[in-house]
Amino acid sequence: MPIVHITRRERFSAAHKLSRPDWSLEKNLATFGKCANPNWHGHNYDLWVTVKGEPSAETGFVIDLSFLGKIIKERVVDLLDHKNIDLDVAFMRGRWSSTENLAIAIWEQLEAPVNESGGRLFCVKLQETENNHVEYYGG
Amino acid sequence: MPIVHITRRERFSAAHKLSRPDWSLEKNLATFGKCANPNWHGHNYDLWVTVKGEPSAETGFVIDLSFLGKIIKERVVDLLDHKNIDLDVAFMRGRWSSTENLAIAIWEQLEAPVNESGGRLFCVKLQETENNHVEYYGG
Amino acid sequence: MPIVHITRRERFSAAHKLSRPDWSLEKNLATFGKCANPNWHGHNYDLWVTVKGEPSAETGFVIDLSFLGKIIKERVVDLLDHKNIDLDVAFMRGRWSSTENLAIAIWEQLEAPVNESGGRLFCVKLQETENNHVEYYGG
Amino acid sequence: MPIVHITRRERFSAAHKLSRPDWSLEKNLATFGKCANPNWHGHNYDLWVTVKGEPSAETGFVIDLSFLGKIIKERVVDLLDHKNIDLDVAFMRGRWSSTENLAIAIWEQLEAPVNESGGRLFCVKLQETENNHVEYYGG
Amino acid sequence: MPIVHITRRERFSAAHKLSRPDWSLEKNLATFGKCANPNWHGHNYDLWVTVKGEPSAETGFVIDLSFLGKIIKERVVDLLDHKNIDLDVAFMRGRWSSTENLAIAIWEQLEAPVNESGGRLFCVKLQETENNHVEYYGG
Amino acid sequence: MPIVHITRRERFSAAHKLSRPDWSLEKNLATFGKCANPNWHGHNYDLWVTVKGEPSAETGFVIDLSFLGKIIKERVVDLLDHKNIDLDVAFMRGRWSSTENLAIAIWEQLEAPVNESGGRLFCVKLQETENNHVEYYGG
Repeated sequence: MPIVHITRRERFSAAHKLSRPDWSLEKNLATFGKCANPNWHGHNYDLWVTVKGEPSAETGFVIDLSFLGKIIKERVVDLLDHKNIDLDVAFMRGRWSSTENLAIAIWEQLEAPVNESGGRLFCVKLQETENNHVEYYGG
Repeated sequence: MPIVHITRRERFSAAHKLSRPDWSLEKNLATFGKCANPNWHGHNYDLWVTVKGEPSAETGFVIDLSFLGKIIKERVVDLLDHKNIDLDVAFMRGRWSSTENLAIAIWEQLEAPVNESGGRLFCVKLQETENNHVEYYGG
Repeated sequence: MPIVHITRRERFSAAHKLSRPDWSLEKNLATFGKCANPNWHGHNYDLWVTVKGEPSAETGFVIDLSFLGKIIKERVVDLLDHKNIDLDVAFMRGRWSSTENLAIAIWEQLEAPVNESGGRLFCVKLQETENNHVEYYGG
Repeated sequence: MPIVHITRRERFSAAHKLSRPDWSLEKNLATFGKCANPNWHGHNYDLWVTVKGEPSAETGFVIDLSFLGKIIKERVVDLLDHKNIDLDVAFMRGRWSSTENLAIAIWEQLEAPVNESGGRLFCVKLQETENNHVEYYGG
Repeated sequence: MPIVHITRRERFSAAHKLSRPDWSLEKNLATFGKCANPNWHGHNYDLWVTVKGEPSAETGFVIDLSFLGKIIKERVVDLLDHKNIDLDVAFMRGRWSSTENLAIAIWEQLEAPVNESGGRLFCVKLQETENNHVEYYGG
Repeated sequence: MPIVHITRRERFSAAHKLSRPDWSLEKNLATFGKCANPNWHGHNYDLWVTVKGEPSAETGFVIDLSFLGKIIKERVVDLLDHKNIDLDVAFMRGRWSSTENLAIAIWEQLEAPVNESGGRLFCVKLQETENNHVEYYGG
């Protein structure tokens, strides 16, 4: 049976900084550069969530995109959009908000509800600026 | 020998709806939402076709992009552009025009002529809106 | 007092054709080319609505973008998205759905409610494909 | 003599919130919605600066773009990038950081050095997200 | 009668350098920086041509876009695409190929045939890289 | 341990032609079409470099993007930007400058310094125009 990958894009805007609380400001600035600015900075994040599976013979869908959108909204976007990733987001507590770590955490938010739907979560792609993005495939 | 993936983008604009003729309008609307609008809607589709192979020592090409473009034009774009996918396109007869099904059908249109050229068709990526796309790798 | 132009983008996907009912199919095809395909085609339209005014001393806003978004949604996007412009849209009745005519009609839908809000509608920009768009300034 | 408009794009990422310190949190949330989140949020801002003038007979330039880029960097981007607009940016003190107000303030930062160069500052366009931007023409 | 602006985008890829033959290499490098590289460099240029006029009551068109495209192709793109602007392009002879000068020359190529069609050429916008573009309005 | 792919985009503008010096002009034009124009043409190239690895527990980084950017700048962009690929670039000597061959050569420039950093070079993606790009995975 044919396997298709389907991707939905969502967006959120958030503040963060790269700064370990157990390090001095000097060490944070030396390690993370301007990303360690104490008063935060922020980004428009673009998020692509890819699900893999066989299109249903009944609907032609791997997964209903409005259902996938609803999961992403409830489990990711509503929790991150117009928030401070380091202060306001329970699922990021205890992690540095590098794009890598944020993508892994978003995967963890989505894996169970997506996989229960019959598809398989395949990739979380997270773009921080037009010049950098990460992809996480779950392992 | 090095293997390179090369991709050419093409575009087409088409009408369609998601609506099974063996279902009632109510069931179609309940399943497919606004995509089931009886009088059709439409999209600008972006299509990326990826071919995989060794660059020729003579030309440095995996496949001549103008030849690839000609195949895509004759076998896909000329048949879909400014058409109704559900009414005007022979290779979509009997299939619901979900993006998944359309990508699979485009693969079938391209596989033989691309593979006869010496490259291997690797991926058909089809974007329906800026917020959703599918990828099909042929199996 | 400083005058600022603020723009909000919205999107809709719709079917249409360029075809005058009082002309023969031959004349329509000769005049409008593939845009006259009898079974329709469609596009993803991008719409930018620009409002001009002084930023409020209280809020810093020319117009509240969520209010502007609500007007555009109610008066334009909900009426066009996933519709057939020529069959389903009351405000386009009796007009050929060229991008020019559609932009003028969208202006007419927006002018009164935007101007009642205290800003001035300045421009409706409507993009039909990545290679063509129109701008209408209301006169 | 021909007049040409030339535009340079720059980018910065910053945190901010829309929240008046003389208002209660309730009033700020009622007025500014999620933009009033107390712990800030942030954006990738795109900035286009347009200068108008006659191309020099000697160089063909209205303004040397590397000189214009240097002015924008020193007077705008270095002061905003990876900063908190409301806490870290002297030229925004005492203003709410609406996109409108920020564009006006950027104009004020650029007007004198651009106009001393022989060109005329024509437009500051500032995009906060892919769905909204403002343009300021200096009056 | 309503006036609408309609824009068509075209693209070309070309080599050029900024280097006056009556100047020494040193002076050219000091003035034009890396753009003076003696062995040329090149760009993908994006060109937007805007025509202004009343939509025809008969067709709804300010100008037939396929006719406009044909003019741009014959008078501009075919002469510039995959060419060296400084060596291969008759209409650029004796001009430095700054983006400003190239936009003016493209205007001169288009003005007569566009205006004879019944519309008025309104703007030539030419983008050299994602970070810079010029606009010329004909005077 | 989780494996993440991280990508940085860089850009360069360069001249080139597709033309074998051991072939006649006629044969070059017959094989490479307008890409064989004797006086060169050029492009804005977009380059995405993807590195794969485990995020560091200390920083959350697979690789420090400013370090990756520095490698790409020194080993690739400074050597290609505003150059003639066929005349000015030592690492392209003796190769036809097809996009495929250029991507392979860029990989060779980056592989050792990236892999010494602790990450693994995973993909070089090189886009020549908005309609074509190649990806090379190193084998």
